[in-house]
Amino acid sequence: MGSKFVYRFGKSHTEGNKEMKQLLGGKGANLAEMSRIGLPVPPGFTISTEACARYHEAANASLADIEPEIRNALSFIEQERNQVLGDPERPLLVSVRSGAAISMPGMMDTVLNLGLNPLVVEGLAKLTKNPRFAWDLYRRFIDMFGDVVMGVSHEHFEHAIHLKKQEKGITEDTDLTAQDLEQLCRTYLEIYEQHTAKTFPHDPWEQLIAAIEAVFRSWDSDRAVKYRRINHVFGLLGTAVNVQSMVYGNKGQTCGTGVLFTRNPSTGENKLYGEFLINAQGEDVVAGIRTPSPIDELQGKMPKCHQQILEVTKKLERHYKTMQDIEFTIEDEELFILQTRTGKCNGAAAVRMACEMVDEGLVEPKDAVRYLVEPDHLNQLLHPHFADEDAYQADIIAKGLPASPGAAVGRIVFTSEEAENWKARGEKVIMVRVETSPDDVGGMHAAQGILTTRGGMTSHAAVVARGWGKCCISGCGDLEVDEHKRSFRIGNKEFKEGDWLSLNGSTGEVIQGAHSLKAPEISGSFARFMGWVDQFRKMGVRTNAETPSDAKKSMEFGAEGIGLCRTEHMFFAADRILHFREMILSESEEQRKAALALILPYQRQDFFDLFKIMDGRPVNIRLLDPPLHEFLPKLEADQRELAKQLKMTYEAVHQAVEELGEVNPMLGFRGCRLGIVYPEITAMQTRAIFEAALDIKALGKAIHPEVMVPLVGGITELEHQAKVIRETAQAVFAERNESVEFKVGTMIEIPRAALRAGEIAKEAEYFSFGTNDLTQMTFGYSRDDVGKFLPHYISGKIVPVDPFQVLDQDGVGELVVIAVERGRKIRPGIKLGVCGEHGGDPRSVKFFAKVGMDYVSCSPFRVPIAKLAAAQAALEFFDIPEA
Amino acid sequence: MGSKFVYRFGKSHTEGNKEMKQLLGGKGANLAEMSRIGLPVPPGFTISTEACARYHEAANASLADIEPEIRNALSFIEQERNQVLGDPERPLLVSVRSGAAISMPGMMDTVLNLGLNPLVVEGLAKLTKNPRFAWDLYRRFIDMFGDVVMGVSHEHFEHAIHLKKQEKGITEDTDLTAQDLEQLCRTYLEIYEQHTAKTFPHDPWEQLIAAIEAVFRSWDSDRAVKYRRINHVFGLLGTAVNVQSMVYGNKGQTCGTGVLFTRNPSTGENKLYGEFLINAQGEDVVAGIRTPSPIDELQGKMPKCHQQILEVTKKLERHYKTMQDIEFTIEDEELFILQTRTGKCNGAAAVRMACEMVDEGLVEPKDAVRYLVEPDHLNQLLHPHFADEDAYQADIIAKGLPASPGAAVGRIVFTSEEAENWKARGEKVIMVRVETSPDDVGGMHAAQGILTTRGGMTSHAAVVARGWGKCCISGCGDLEVDEHKRSFRIGNKEFKEGDWLSLNGSTGEVIQGAHSLKAPEISGSFARFMGWVDQFRKMGVRTNAETPSDAKKSMEFGAEGIGLCRTEHMFFAADRILHFREMILSESEEQRKAALALILPYQRQDFFDLFKIMDGRPVNIRLLDPPLHEFLPKLEADQRELAKQLKMTYEAVHQAVEELGEVNPMLGFRGCRLGIVYPEITAMQTRAIFEAALDIKALGKAIHPEVMVPLVGGITELEHQAKVIRETAQAVFAERNESVEFKVGTMIEIPRAALRAGEIAKEAEYFSFGTNDLTQMTFGYSRDDVGKFLPHYISGKIVPVDPFQVLDQDGVGELVVIAVERGRKIRPGIKLGVCGEHGGDPRSVKFFAKVGMDYVSCSPFRVPIAKLAAAQAALEFFDIPEA
Repeated sequence: MGSKFVYRFGKSHTEGNKEMKQLLGGKGANLAEMSRIGLPVPPGFTISTEACARYHEAANASLADIEPEIRNALSFIEQERNQVLGDPERPLLVSVRSGAAISMPGMMDTVLNLGLNPLVVEGLAKLTKNPRFAWDLYRRFIDMFGDVVMGVSHEHFEHAIHLKKQEKGITEDTDLTAQDLEQLCRTYLEIYEQHTAKTFPHDPWEQLIAAIEAVFRSWDSDRAVKYRRINHVFGLLGTAVNVQSMVYGNKGQTCGTGVLFTRNPSTGENKLYGEFLINAQGEDVVAGIRTPSPIDELQGKMPKCHQQILEVTKKLERHYKTMQDIEFTIEDEELFILQTRTGKCNGAAAVRMACEMVDEGLVEPKDAVRYLVEPDHLNQLLHPHFADEDAYQADIIAKGLPASPGAAVGRIVFTSEEAENWKARGEKVIMVRVETSPDDVGGMHAAQGILTTRGGMTSHAAVVARGWGKCCISGCGDLEVDEHKRSFRIGNKEFKEGDWLSLNGSTGEVIQGAHSLKAPEISGSFARFMGWVDQFRKMGVRTNAETPSDAKKSMEFGAEGIGLCRTEHMFFAADRILHFREMILSESEEQRKAALALILPYQRQDFFDLFKIMDGRPVNIRLLDPPLHEFLPKLEADQRELAKQLKMTYEAVHQAVEELGEVNPMLGFRGCRLGIVYPEITAMQTRAIFEAALDIKALGKAIHPEVMVPLVGGITELEHQAKVIRETAQAVFAERNESVEFKVGTMIEIPRAALRAGEIAKEAEYFSFGTNDLTQMTFGYSRDDVGKFLPHYISGKIVPVDPFQVLDQDGVGELVVIAVERGRKIRPGIKLGVCGEHGGDPRSVKFFAKVGMDYVSCSPFRVPIAKLAAAQAALEFFDIPEA
Repeated sequence: MGSKFVYRFGKSHTEGNKEMKQLLGGKGANLAEMSRIGLPVPPGFTISTEACARYHEAANASLADIEPEIRNALSFIEQERNQVLGDPERPLLVSVRSGAAISMPGMMDTVLNLGLNPLVVEGLAKLTKNPRFAWDLYRRFIDMFGDVVMGVSHEHFEHAIHLKKQEKGITEDTDLTAQDLEQLCRTYLEIYEQHTAKTFPHDPWEQLIAAIEAVFRSWDSDRAVKYRRINHVFGLLGTAVNVQSMVYGNKGQTCGTGVLFTRNPSTGENKLYGEFLINAQGEDVVAGIRTPSPIDELQGKMPKCHQQILEVTKKLERHYKTMQDIEFTIEDEELFILQTRTGKCNGAAAVRMACEMVDEGLVEPKDAVRYLVEPDHLNQLLHPHFADEDAYQADIIAKGLPASPGAAVGRIVFTSEEAENWKARGEKVIMVRVETSPDDVGGMHAAQGILTTRGGMTSHAAVVARGWGKCCISGCGDLEVDEHKRSFRIGNKEFKEGDWLSLNGSTGEVIQGAHSLKAPEISGSFARFMGWVDQFRKMGVRTNAETPSDAKKSMEFGAEGIGLCRTEHMFFAADRILHFREMILSESEEQRKAALALILPYQRQDFFDLFKIMDGRPVNIRLLDPPLHEFLPKLEADQRELAKQLKMTYEAVHQAVEELGEVNPMLGFRGCRLGIVYPEITAMQTRAIFEAALDIKALGKAIHPEVMVPLVGGITELEHQAKVIRETAQAVFAERNESVEFKVGTMIEIPRAALRAGEIAKEAEYFSFGTNDLTQMTFGYSRDDVGKFLPHYISGKIVPVDPFQVLDQDGVGELVVIAVERGRKIRPGIKLGVCGEHGGDPRSVKFFAKVGMDYVSCSPFRVPIAKLAAAQAALEFFDIPEA
């Protein structure tokens, strides 16, 4: 860790730049960068994330040792602005804002107008000849300082202002006079003292140090921790603190403040998109209390500023080579940029922007793939939309702002907690709120969609939902929400908790009932972008599919083969489950073989259909995997019915079901253990595969079957099954006097198999990593039971994230690496793939690309996501020559 | 592999020696050694195990390429004996015997008298002037060749001899005349042709090659494979074949054959122990058809030979430095030694011999520990014996030969298959047979004890049972067994399958009913021997115990501390299970804490008692491990009772039980997961430990508690629990103003924990390897369900042995090694132990010693076994200076 903790930015001197995000946070690095390239940024300084880490590490957290550095940096601002902190004659006020390396909207706390005390307020009133402005600043400062630094809830101050407005008979804050505000300030100070049992600090230096410490502390607040968890943000040192001289958007009608995106984050259109408020401070826009005006309207009101904004935003896009999200303030028609960062947008917008920025010559396709579109963006594009928008027109009950596009159907809930609870029960929910706050992120994440009655397109709900690509409608004022009664009204219609609701986030339509959704398609910009992805990608992407419809869908989404075809799913179909049950209940090998012979034609047809759809692409077929008891009925009535069908006694069926039952089926009689004890099952499945393959070949088509043995723990198991497979294949080939090329491989899903991979590779022509089961056994977590403690583990930071969603690189990942290395050492050309659900998780996919897998396999809908992650990994980890 | 496959031994020239067992097999190596040191051994040669491996590896198994070498070696014998194979004038006959590196009694096949055909028989008759002898040899040869080489069952030949004796009205084979035997030979040749559809080979060379191939083939016979499995014999190339010139014990009254041990294998007494038959071939003694005479009686009959035997056996013991098991033949009063090998004896005998051989100056204590006593020998000594031998005197129903000492109680079964089936159901059985054959080894192994009506002290049953240290009574002629009716009679009493029977293998007493057994003690020679063991041992041996009685027993057996105290066993006691159930069913932390407070005094007392018994030795206490549902009643009636006791509704109890149920409890909400979600449980247990520890300290005694966190998968879990433990300990210390030293450690039982051991060692002061669970998760085998496929896996050679009995060094062992290395790297002084059941398995213990564990922990009764294995490992793997 360095010995420098404070970095200045200003016209005369700037120490940071945009590459220093880890140290200065995103906000600080970008403020420095903007200063550096000559944009109008109020001078300030950034206290580094290292200082935050140092602060949290110390036994008695204190800023004492870096105070001299802060004092020096403050002097720098005072010189740049020709103002002095605490000086009533020429008072310097500053903002204190957090800024971590990764943007966390609404998560961290901000204090504006710091440096005020009664004397300075008087001086400022005199200086600006605007007492109302001065007292309003002080009011805001006391509120923010009390809330952020001392934990005095903002509500107490809001209540006071509410009473004052009632007393005066007014509704708008702007109607309060200077005197009203001065009185309010006194009330605020009383509230502060009442709740903190302390006097409000009048020493601006004391205020500054306290505010900086509060920002540092907020890094570990529950809501910050929760946000980082949901967004999988780890490995950061802490937050930086930005201390910046204030400029005032609330000084009068030639002042204002706003936020904007350099392009439309909902559609991707290349047109400024944002809002502003005249005579307001920045927090007013985001808070959603006053409804701001669209940015276009600034042109009529302050054309010079509007023109300047156009120029600044062009410059920023050319400089950052991506869409920017900007905060600005206008003080007496002078524009200041207070923040810039890469704008969050939805998937459709990201893809459109990527294509247009390539066309504009702003970036190259490689860059578009590398950073303009995130895998999660594609996830949004692959989200469902309404099957038929006409069909629901009669059910539209209201219209709000189309804050985040997509479609959502779910049951109404009113609180974050309920949203999480219902989700945990497997329900899809729509979260309905007056407005959302950072405390609601858990519920928002759990919900299919979010509907709010207040707030604009940049309200908390809108920003967070867009970031997640989750459908959101905001500002739907027709709704009267009664959170207490858990219902809302629209006109004379009442909707209660649990009622079904549909949202169209692209149009803002709120629709009663559950309307059917349709799967998305890849076309237009999306298809063009995927072309670039395929160009830079090195790792293959297959799909997990066993039904013709999944196989077809996966082909549409660009799957390069089937990475996992679970044959047991085929046995559950009504026309064959009886035969399969008869097979299970057989008492002799002959009886079992007879039952299997009845299943063979079905299974052969299944494979034939799949091979035909996949049209020559490799199809990896996993032999029977689950324990046999999963195929038998649990209920007495069903067992009696089965007994009748099979001409057995109920007792015999019941006893067989009992005997097949297992204490830990996950670790029981399943996988290749079945095929080894009953080789006739393996033989039947293999016969079906090769008969179907020869039928395909007879049609003159290419065919590449891969036969995979599940749950292998050592070479002897695979040898046994491979022998049955190869002998059966040869028998079929001999009967038909024709053959096909095929591969025999194995799952690597048992820890022992990973360790013994070298030996196993002597027999296996390919490995497919079953990271679901490998995670279960490496952690000792039963996926079916993990709900009893994993949520607690995640919230208590015992595990960073659900290891079934994101591969645990430290533990499970090491076993994967061991198996890759040992397998390749024995059989250098061995094909390596992944068929666990991690194959569709971008972070995991990048890991698999890095360790050199040949392909990943995922659900059809995640194929494009996996492809993008693979391409990004290729660009990150391997040298890709420019196309 | 070398290019030499045949090794000669004889007076003029010997190529092998006793160190070459891997190559020549035990029998071949010892024949060479005996030739080398001048003992009277008929000349011969050994075809190596490499030749066997080569034979089995070849696609078309054939001896063609080593035939020239065999021919040369045969010429060597012919020169030494001045005889020629197939020459009627001076015929050479040879025996062909198998001999692997490890002795497998009765497992491999032997052909004697090879080289005979009608012409040679005539020649031999003329030469010896003993046609009866010549035809008897031929009869035996046809029988053995037909049986061993061509698979014509011995029974067919026995039937023919039986008919001949009936026809002649005689009962003994010896009463058959030369003419009878000549006729029998013709009948035998017909039987042979009938069953093989081939002519019996008259070319001696053809006979020889066929016999050698048969021995090679017998290596892979089912019974050989089964024997190797039961005896955990792996890694051998194959069997060697010994071709040796015949000497004849059946030439007349100055001839004979016998087997003997240089000391008594049942008691260890330093006195020849064996049997002989006059005018017989070796197979007659072992087969148990004629009842042989004790070896002492030879003195009266052939004093010179007896004296020579005494000298030879002394010489052999001095040379081999261990008790020898010898086969000899006397031909015309000339002694020949046909085999020597290390004698198998029971545990008591082994320990006595070890002590006496040290006293005799034959070996040093180090050698006694290294090889004279096997860990399994101690297992026999630790077997139970009858609690009160007087008490069963009235129930003695018969007396047989005390073939293998020890006591056994079980239910009667009559077949090997039933013995295995009953055992699998959890029944203890006594196997009752007329006589046993190699096909019975499975059932013999499954039985508590074996009782036969026929056969002597060296019959198949006796030899095999002694090898295993299993109680056996042989030759109990009073029993009339009706295997068909599954019953036996003694006088007018009938005993049926399932009736209880007790055997005293040390006295030969057969006792009706089930008599109670008593645990053994360590005293006398055993204690002296254990003293040497402790002297050479480097690794500690603790015990798994939680009850005072187990703890006391373990102290008697020399445990050096408790390696695993399972605290949950304490919760099941009647006086606390209700409180524990109340704790589980609590709906709030307060309610839970209140219930825990009621358990605290019991738990504190438990620990106090344990600490007191262990008297300053370390006690490693594992915190609560099993899933909570294991503590709740499953049956409705019990749930209703519980509801009443806890003043809850039945529905609430029932629902709670249902909710706590798990699909895979092994991988569920258990271990530290409980303590993390409910830290108050950890706190209560920790409080009980430290309050008890301080109570012990108050008595002026030493105390070293170790608190172990189970089921840790990563550092964060251990950090969480260690914090609770350390804080609770400090709180107790503060209250009592007194403290004790303690350690906080963790189980390594999850694969991920092994991989992350380096990180975990930052917090853990010790690791205890829970190899049971580690095996479950590394293999993906649920111990509770493995019965569905593991027997099949073992019999099908998919796994060499049950990995829950013997540690899988390749897979689980690698994880252990990884954890040891990573743990030691981060914390060089970290204490490493094993508390899985493998801690009591000698082979596993040797592995743990090799990888540098500080201790193993096992059940009290296995402590001496683990100690011996540890001492042997120390002598094998580390330099131990002579004491």
